[in-house]
Amino acid sequence: MAESFPMNGGDGTYSYTNNSQFQKQGSDLAKGMIKEAITEKLDTEISGTFQIVDFGCSVGPNTFFATENMIEAVKNKCILQGLDSKNMEFQVSFNDHTENDFNTLFASLPLDRQYHAAGVPGSFYRRLFPRASINLAYSSYALQWLSKMPDEVSDRKSAAWNEGKIHYSGSPTEVVDAYADQFEKDMGVFISARAEEILSGGLMVLIMPGIPESAAHLPYSAGVLFNFLGSSLMDLAIEGIIDKAEIDTFNLPIYFPSDEEMRKVIEKNGCFSIERIELVNPMSQVNGVVNLDSLIMHLRAGMEGIFTKHFGYDVTEKMFNKTLSKSEEILKLLESGHFNSTQLSVVLKRK
Amino acid sequence: MAESFPMNGGDGTYSYTNNSQFQKQGSDLAKGMIKEAITEKLDTEISGTFQIVDFGCSVGPNTFFATENMIEAVKNKCILQGLDSKNMEFQVSFNDHTENDFNTLFASLPLDRQYHAAGVPGSFYRRLFPRASINLAYSSYALQWLSKMPDEVSDRKSAAWNEGKIHYSGSPTEVVDAYADQFEKDMGVFISARAEEILSGGLMVLIMPGIPESAAHLPYSAGVLFNFLGSSLMDLAIEGIIDKAEIDTFNLPIYFPSDEEMRKVIEKNGCFSIERIELVNPMSQVNGVVNLDSLIMHLRAGMEGIFTKHFGYDVTEKMFNKTLSKSEEILKLLESGHFNSTQLSVVLKRK
Repeated sequence: MAESFPMNGGDGTYSYTNNSQFQKQGSDLAKGMIKEAITEKLDTEISGTFQIVDFGCSVGPNTFFATENMIEAVKNKCILQGLDSKNMEFQVSFNDHTENDFNTLFASLPLDRQYHAAGVPGSFYRRLFPRASINLAYSSYALQWLSKMPDEVSDRKSAAWNEGKIHYSGSPTEVVDAYADQFEKDMGVFISARAEEILSGGLMVLIMPGIPESAAHLPYSAGVLFNFLGSSLMDLAIEGIIDKAEIDTFNLPIYFPSDEEMRKVIEKNGCFSIERIELVNPMSQVNGVVNLDSLIMHLRAGMEGIFTKHFGYDVTEKMFNKTLSKSEEILKLLESGHFNSTQLSVVLKRK
Repeated sequence: MAESFPMNGGDGTYSYTNNSQFQKQGSDLAKGMIKEAITEKLDTEISGTFQIVDFGCSVGPNTFFATENMIEAVKNKCILQGLDSKNMEFQVSFNDHTENDFNTLFASLPLDRQYHAAGVPGSFYRRLFPRASINLAYSSYALQWLSKMPDEVSDRKSAAWNEGKIHYSGSPTEVVDAYADQFEKDMGVFISARAEEILSGGLMVLIMPGIPESAAHLPYSAGVLFNFLGSSLMDLAIEGIIDKAEIDTFNLPIYFPSDEEMRKVIEKNGCFSIERIELVNPMSQVNGVVNLDSLIMHLRAGMEGIFTKHFGYDVTEKMFNKTLSKSEEILKLLESGHFNSTQLSVVLKRK
């Protein structure tokens, strides 16, 4: 069964609700692309119930903005093409792990929503919906989470042992390959499950962090941050606060694929045509300097859970504080411009 | 907008999860009836997705037993009638107020479930699902909750003012009538919403506490308990712990209709045929004496929220403790046999 690392619930200082602007920047970038895809590519019958699903929705508010945009685009398509949408009703299903804070999600549902809302708990690395029931599937900043950490990387007998590190960024090829294999397996399962659930002519839009093929082994911005979290943990090991073995057995199940890796999985499955696949740099469209404190807050909102599960709350708190104290060093590295921070956007159509 | 009074969440001493055996007795009684209804009356197409909805599901586990039973019955029907159910998939949607503890509900979903699960937040006194999307609707011990307390009963200028009491049981006709009007209005809205959502040939099974027409103005077992809660509150007013005005402005939005009242609403709507409507006494089939402590615990699990909202936690705690100390008195009244405790069961078929 897939492991679960929910975003921080509630609406406090470290909550995902209050710390998900970076994900929002990413989906804002994709807004135009989604609108265009719906207008030009969507090809399911426009009558009866139109189901939209957000896979890995977390607790909002980004999922509400995204789904509203999609509904508007479908409605506009109907107007443009003179289709009769009088009898159409929208159903929006919000999917995330069972441990996601659905109570907070439901409590913040827009009151004036123009759709029927449902929450669907469970890992998206398995079937979740009835066959041929989805018109439009969407996932934003969720698929970088693998179903689990690859086994080899925490096995000291394996060539892929990732000693003293918590992520593959900057690690030997064997480590990177173990992560890449896990991604290929997981994404294969995801695509197969969705192929059964999405109606012929329906669309799937995937947005996630990605990297150019050529940069596969270079560090990139999130990788730099992960390495700083890792080195903060190593500092704590040196101070005797934790055992180094605890770090050796922990690896973030997060992978940033290249567009080519993604293309390979989709083509192997064969049920979808690739309407669009591209890498863009969302940061290049953001004015001003990076606010590192808020970047680390955002990392914490999304990732505190997985660290707490392994290291406990105190160590996790210390790790984030230590990393914050390295702000200048991190900023210098990030701003040196040698790092890539790219967004992979994919539009697929169910054959 | 309908008010919401969720059952106690979590799985602690006073949780609904651990205090819903009485509701389970009620639905066990209905099990045979539901099986028969599915076998003989259900008339939607058996192919593709088969959607079952539990309206007012609370946090389990009763809703899981009930929905599993319904799925078994549908599968048996297919076998008996030689229907090909190979391609059929079950979707079970769990509905309750947005404030219901969906996190607990989702965490306790059976791991080996044979259906796709979804949670649908919102009052069932409005539309919740797309048109013609439900094959089988179910509601057990939820429809006694009105959408709100009738306005008149807390209005000191009205003839229906329910002074010093928290429920209509044993109150003047005007009070009972105000409650009856609210029920008629609410149930009318419920039936209309479901008429749009249920497929032609689909079934709706409703189970709730009810009373024989002739007993409308007599107290019945739940009413006796409500009156004891009310008199405990009055004790607290006499002790100066709360203001009597607080009691005068509070009335439980709970109504136990007769079969005739229910029939009237359904016939007025006109979209459903009544396949069965009956009153039974679940207690008569339970061996042994009533365990009053557990009956009061069960009341508390279901009703603590609404009292806390109005009176605060301390007063609510004191009220339940005071009522527990009156156990002997309550038991004597309950066992005198002058009280009715009946279950109203209804099977409707969408025309």
